[in-house]
Amino acid sequence: MIRVSIVGGSGYTGGELIRLLSFHPQVEIHQVTSRAHLGEYIHQMHPNLRKINSLKFCDPKQLEPVDLLFLAVPHGEVQKHIDDYYQLAPKLIDLSADFRLQDPVLYEKWYGKAHAAPHWLPRFVYGLPEINREAIQKSDYVSGVGCNATASILALLPTMKSGLMDDASSVTIEVKVGSSEGGASVNDGSHHPERSGVIRTFSAFGHRHTAEVIQAFGLQKLWLTMTAVDLVRGALATAHLQLKPGVEMKDLWKAYRAVIQENPFLRLVNEKRGVYRVPEPKVLAGSNYADLGFAFDQESNHLVAICAIDNLMKGASGTAVQCMNLMMGWDEMAGLSFPGLHPI
Amino acid sequence: MIRVSIVGGSGYTGGELIRLLSFHPQVEIHQVTSRAHLGEYIHQMHPNLRKINSLKFCDPKQLEPVDLLFLAVPHGEVQKHIDDYYQLAPKLIDLSADFRLQDPVLYEKWYGKAHAAPHWLPRFVYGLPEINREAIQKSDYVSGVGCNATASILALLPTMKSGLMDDASSVTIEVKVGSSEGGASVNDGSHHPERSGVIRTFSAFGHRHTAEVIQAFGLQKLWLTMTAVDLVRGALATAHLQLKPGVEMKDLWKAYRAVIQENPFLRLVNEKRGVYRVPEPKVLAGSNYADLGFAFDQESNHLVAICAIDNLMKGASGTAVQCMNLMMGWDEMAGLSFPGLHPI
Amino acid sequence: MIRVSIVGGSGYTGGELIRLLSFHPQVEIHQVTSRAHLGEYIHQMHPNLRKINSLKFCDPKQLEPVDLLFLAVPHGEVQKHIDDYYQLAPKLIDLSADFRLQDPVLYEKWYGKAHAAPHWLPRFVYGLPEINREAIQKSDYVSGVGCNATASILALLPTMKSGLMDDASSVTIEVKVGSSEGGASVNDGSHHPERSGVIRTFSAFGHRHTAEVIQAFGLQKLWLTMTAVDLVRGALATAHLQLKPGVEMKDLWKAYRAVIQENPFLRLVNEKRGVYRVPEPKVLAGSNYADLGFAFDQESNHLVAICAIDNLMKGASGTAVQCMNLMMGWDEMAGLSFPGLHPI
Amino acid sequence: MIRVSIVGGSGYTGGELIRLLSFHPQVEIHQVTSRAHLGEYIHQMHPNLRKINSLKFCDPKQLEPVDLLFLAVPHGEVQKHIDDYYQLAPKLIDLSADFRLQDPVLYEKWYGKAHAAPHWLPRFVYGLPEINREAIQKSDYVSGVGCNATASILALLPTMKSGLMDDASSVTIEVKVGSSEGGASVNDGSHHPERSGVIRTFSAFGHRHTAEVIQAFGLQKLWLTMTAVDLVRGALATAHLQLKPGVEMKDLWKAYRAVIQENPFLRLVNEKRGVYRVPEPKVLAGSNYADLGFAFDQESNHLVAICAIDNLMKGASGTAVQCMNLMMGWDEMAGLSFPGLHPI
Repeated sequence: MIRVSIVGGSGYTGGELIRLLSFHPQVEIHQVTSRAHLGEYIHQMHPNLRKINSLKFCDPKQLEPVDLLFLAVPHGEVQKHIDDYYQLAPKLIDLSADFRLQDPVLYEKWYGKAHAAPHWLPRFVYGLPEINREAIQKSDYVSGVGCNATASILALLPTMKSGLMDDASSVTIEVKVGSSEGGASVNDGSHHPERSGVIRTFSAFGHRHTAEVIQAFGLQKLWLTMTAVDLVRGALATAHLQLKPGVEMKDLWKAYRAVIQENPFLRLVNEKRGVYRVPEPKVLAGSNYADLGFAFDQESNHLVAICAIDNLMKGASGTAVQCMNLMMGWDEMAGLSFPGLHPI
Repeated sequence: MIRVSIVGGSGYTGGELIRLLSFHPQVEIHQVTSRAHLGEYIHQMHPNLRKINSLKFCDPKQLEPVDLLFLAVPHGEVQKHIDDYYQLAPKLIDLSADFRLQDPVLYEKWYGKAHAAPHWLPRFVYGLPEINREAIQKSDYVSGVGCNATASILALLPTMKSGLMDDASSVTIEVKVGSSEGGASVNDGSHHPERSGVIRTFSAFGHRHTAEVIQAFGLQKLWLTMTAVDLVRGALATAHLQLKPGVEMKDLWKAYRAVIQENPFLRLVNEKRGVYRVPEPKVLAGSNYADLGFAFDQESNHLVAICAIDNLMKGASGTAVQCMNLMMGWDEMAGLSFPGLHPI
Repeated sequence: MIRVSIVGGSGYTGGELIRLLSFHPQVEIHQVTSRAHLGEYIHQMHPNLRKINSLKFCDPKQLEPVDLLFLAVPHGEVQKHIDDYYQLAPKLIDLSADFRLQDPVLYEKWYGKAHAAPHWLPRFVYGLPEINREAIQKSDYVSGVGCNATASILALLPTMKSGLMDDASSVTIEVKVGSSEGGASVNDGSHHPERSGVIRTFSAFGHRHTAEVIQAFGLQKLWLTMTAVDLVRGALATAHLQLKPGVEMKDLWKAYRAVIQENPFLRLVNEKRGVYRVPEPKVLAGSNYADLGFAFDQESNHLVAICAIDNLMKGASGTAVQCMNLMMGWDEMAGLSFPGLHPI
Repeated sequence: MIRVSIVGGSGYTGGELIRLLSFHPQVEIHQVTSRAHLGEYIHQMHPNLRKINSLKFCDPKQLEPVDLLFLAVPHGEVQKHIDDYYQLAPKLIDLSADFRLQDPVLYEKWYGKAHAAPHWLPRFVYGLPEINREAIQKSDYVSGVGCNATASILALLPTMKSGLMDDASSVTIEVKVGSSEGGASVNDGSHHPERSGVIRTFSAFGHRHTAEVIQAFGLQKLWLTMTAVDLVRGALATAHLQLKPGVEMKDLWKAYRAVIQENPFLRLVNEKRGVYRVPEPKVLAGSNYADLGFAFDQESNHLVAICAIDNLMKGASGTAVQCMNLMMGWDEMAGLSFPGLHPI
């Protein structure tokens, strides 16, 4: 049993952390902060937690030392105060974008300004267990993941790990996402009459999560496009790439099965019949599973590789808890058993 | 051919007025104002009007005299400046709530403060042609209607007009509404992740549109409840009341048919088979029709009376254009022929 | 640890039973039947259960004796074969409508034909713990509940239990429901282009769940109206009734608090600020909680009482598992801890 | 004024034809057929047309000669009976897929069987005015268009027409579509609880509309992927391709403006601010406009080209009416002025 606190508990990723940790068998939540909702009950912001968690949001200044600290504050905040947070807990998990990229040059290119604590960058491990499990187990400082980066990396993982991609291939990834990805703050585009029913390609180029995919696999010719659709939770990455000449279906099945077996939260969805033949994010709402699928046109060596996740879970808070489990030496799946709902 | 201007064109009712008047055979739009979007093209706010209307939003201070002025500004604004607007056009149609109630006492009771121009109240006619057609034809000053009031009044109209309601009956009306009813400004509750999929009874009592229903029929025991559901456009009013002893189905059919025949935008929907047996707002999006339906339990004399509308059309801008047609002596349906879509 | 089987596992309530029981600490699922999906993996029908449950659907004829049998087959089936099911397990929980009403006369009135096993009716207890906890604890045969009946009964429970309703009052209940209530079989009205965005009052009178509300409270003047809205999971009941003269707000708070304290799955939602001031079904998806709320107009003694549930959980499978817990003498909340999601 | 009939009026494209032609100033609808809904009023199937069109569906066997016949029956039917239809009217517009491809070999490759009337294939013109205007004007036999093909072809049109694409470039197009694309018949996947909230890549390869894009531009390396999202009407095509070295933004603007000016239903949406900066299908519901947009990464010569349409309008019935206007020598926009709604 360890004591953890959550900095920034009124947002969506903070709320999911509270939900998950409230039921985690080895964790006690000590404090949850929120400047905007100071003194309010957690359930006033997160109505699903009524009767579940009776804490009130406290001031970040009142934070007390704990065993592990989750940081769920806006991008740019943690790098400014990392030396303070460092005093509060021997282990830190930062869900913001501040410590996802190891290279200060890459950070500056994609975020448009120099990092405020570049010496801390190499101390953090990129917190996606499916590509960094051992490093996470050994680390005290783990970053969170970008939700679109997670869906994209996991879509590509079986092909990359097995070396099936043609070296000359470009990679085009279209990510379709729900509205919770934009966070809990309102803006003109998130107004329900404007956001409902959209198919809105809001980022054709330059989305910052692209940098995480580049870092993961060293891809040179990568284009990532983001399209908002009508859903609250969920992201689907569809990747298009060329495989090496001579690759056959059986090679792909082998590559996928290997990755599935090594990773408890990955599942392969590739059915011949029924409604659910391919990965779909909606049945993953609340779940830490990532569903992978693929289609291969052998005539042209073209692969379509798919990954569905809940952007707030596998794409943020679920993976953060999974990292905690690894850092603590616990069962990787502890506290993450909820399988999603059907229908929904 | 007359010249009209629209004050407050960046909101949802303003946008619908621009759309309708851009295609009206006897109207030329002269100016459209918006303080917040000054100098922008109309289509930047209302993307459906690209290539349709090439005007830019102008400053209200630059308004020039026209034949008829539509006022689509926030509640409370028109009563403050009515003497200015009065100078600009011989005919005014005010879509705000400022001149819907004839009685200053009723206004103060429901709006919580005294009216700023009470002497103007009796000069305005409540602009619902289905209950005030002749008065509208003769008037130069017409108010708009509350969307929930419109759905409620039209749901009750056949019963009230035919005198079938039991004198002792109370009336309970539940209105289910889409998100466009809240207007174009964002708030915490309109944020898509929070507003999507809701069934939210946001007003159990005291909704201001109740006063318009009271004014229309003189009802004493009336309860109006508002529930937000997941839809952008549309409102459905379901009214529950007791009929006089001895009323039969044939009396109801007669009452409904009479009202339908007198009013070109009312339709009766009461089918025995098929998917669309009852009124449904979604097929009315963009249309000025109001669909009426009913179910009667003769054993208990209990009537369920239903009305579906598009809250921005029959519940606001469509009815305002219908009023203009009547005020000008034109065909009541001019410029209002769009029938809605199926499927949608 | 007991062994249970589920008859009819391919439908929505069957799927929820499988999900809940797969994680229940004291239960092992022995067999799940489905005629239509014989031999298929459960996860082909319920994609959220991939990697969670590796059973295949079996033939009902192959059912083996177990400790407790859940029956999730279409209405009318269980009453025909009750003598067979009775042989298979000492405890039965029937989620169909067959044994909800104790009185064969009431059954015939609302279901339109005589019951096939009327002698079994008094042996079953209506399985809503909030009104029948002790009887369920002592019984071996428990019926499921109608989802709309559950929402309606729980909306009325605090008022009824405290005797605050005026004896002469009628009760009008509008239930707004999601599409999963119609079950897993397609029909013309469930086709997405037709069902999406609806506000469809599909039953103004005569919905069969009305009989369960009558049975629970002995109400004479009760009208229940059903309106389909755009949501998959969730039901909101809004009840309108008159309270006795002299009732004050404090009496209502007392009545609600008493009911909340006695029932672990009931919560009171009545906030003065924030987005979630009233009960809303969407945050209950997957959860067994029922959220209650109310608004009272003391001037007219009119009460609006609200209850939100997940129709597949508290309105069906969740309550069935809660009944099992009570029948077995276990913790009433075992296996039912999932609190729902925010946002969703 | 000409007389037209519609064969197959109960489906979604048939319904849109009836709506459009009911308001077309130069057309009188003579007959509408439907085997499944014989004798029913049109408004029982298409509830928006109540009071608009009072025809009943008649038997196809009772068809009388008219000036122009619209065929909106399932794929495969027209090729079997083309010699009959040919007797009924001097002009035919076939909305099915039967006469879209000129080459019988291409037809057989993509549709999996030989064409039943291959000698008729060269007599039909592919009915997309934006690429075939002159041929349509001169033809008596015009085919309809595939909705996804339309969105894809129009997304590519400015680049293809201006010769800006690199000759070696592959083209990857992701089309995101609403549920009305599947037609009016229910299936397991169109059941609302399963279809609501989906992001479902139902066709990674081999969608038949691909053939129409190949035919239009002679592309060799083309991949078209279809993803269903939660919307009823609308399709968004996002195309990824490489431009020739040295192409600049100004070349693209020039290419787009040229295409916009030549085609009254094309609009360019490429704004720097506001909510609607890129094409979005939802504001096009009911409209015949196609909105084009693009983003260009000059560093990598990569272009993202976007087209939004209403799949039932510009992607089917609207374009069919546009073809009729051209075949008759009328104003190309006659009867097609509805601009879509905002908000929706």
